[in-house]
Amino acid sequence: MSRSPGRKQENHKISRELFVLTYGALVAQLCKDYEKDEDVNVCLDRMGYSIGIRLIDDFLARSAVKKCRSYSETADMIAQVAFKMYLGVTPSVSCRNATGNEFSLILDKNPLVDFVEELPAERASLCYCNLLCGVIRGALEMVHLAAEVSFLQDRLKGDAVTEIGITFLRKPEERKHRR
Amino acid sequence: MSRSPGRKQENHKISRELFVLTYGALVAQLCKDYEKDEDVNVCLDRMGYSIGIRLIDDFLARSAVKKCRSYSETADMIAQVAFKMYLGVTPSVSCRNATGNEFSLILDKNPLVDFVEELPAERASLCYCNLLCGVIRGALEMVHLAAEVSFLQDRLKGDAVTEIGITFLRKPEERKHRR
Repeated sequence: MSRSPGRKQENHKISRELFVLTYGALVAQLCKDYEKDEDVNVCLDRMGYSIGIRLIDDFLARSAVKKCRSYSETADMIAQVAFKMYLGVTPSVSCRNATGNEFSLILDKNPLVDFVEELPAERASLCYCNLLCGVIRGALEMVHLAAEVSFLQDRLKGDAVTEIGITFLRKPEERKHRR
Repeated sequence: MSRSPGRKQENHKISRELFVLTYGALVAQLCKDYEKDEDVNVCLDRMGYSIGIRLIDDFLARSAVKKCRSYSETADMIAQVAFKMYLGVTPSVSCRNATGNEFSLILDKNPLVDFVEELPAERASLCYCNLLCGVIRGALEMVHLAAEVSFLQDRLKGDAVTEIGITFLRKPEERKHRR
């Protein structure tokens, strides 16, 4: 009855389909709870945020990554290590502005929508995967990086790719320092 | 922009922590939605059922298992292949009756409660992981096996282990045939 034998057998890697379907059940429940898409989106983002602030410890422990020295490195880390670890895909990363604080994560394929054919007509403004934005925002906040995270494109809405935008918000003291 | 490059990079294996935390968000939302634990339990079971009837295709395709010839084989398959695949743990299996249609899956460690310390006092009747019972029931139904599935013990409630009971319901024609 001790915990140790269980721990030894443990394997943190799982097939993601049960997760994807469970996520679908969560979104469906929120769609029952809230009439407006915007309210569902906000709720998913908030839930994601709460998850992100807890997931970061697991991420840092499991990935054993070093401290990132730039926003660009951080964006790469999110795409290449975190997405790979928790969703099994690696988005491509591009920088969207000259000051180097806006990035796009571009997913050719979004595993979270594997079982979703299309959004119902009455849910056209739903950001189905908005939880992910909250997770990224929450996790970044825990490593002292304030960021705005949102979907810029979504295949579920007919876009060619799914694109998550991350804007790192520079702190005033950092700006001063850089001058 | 075609789907194939994405598919090639795909890796269905993921770390389960994001799933576990997302599941927690789902249960928390249902606890907001329903005052009575019993209603949350029923809702989780129903959601699980809907997931199970969809997950079974993925399971059969991914596991490439052969048709089970007995309830005992089926119970072993659930524990050793399905739990391993989707939760990363392997419960032990025991048969609970002489007629061989009641089984227990015993989990020393339940990964779905990794981030849960204990149930709040006002939620003492919550079957936190009841979704799993629904998933098993739904998946079994799709392979023409009717079953009742429920938690018999739960570490979250102070039991030494977590135990899921599966009772296969024999069909009338099968009973007749066996006579």
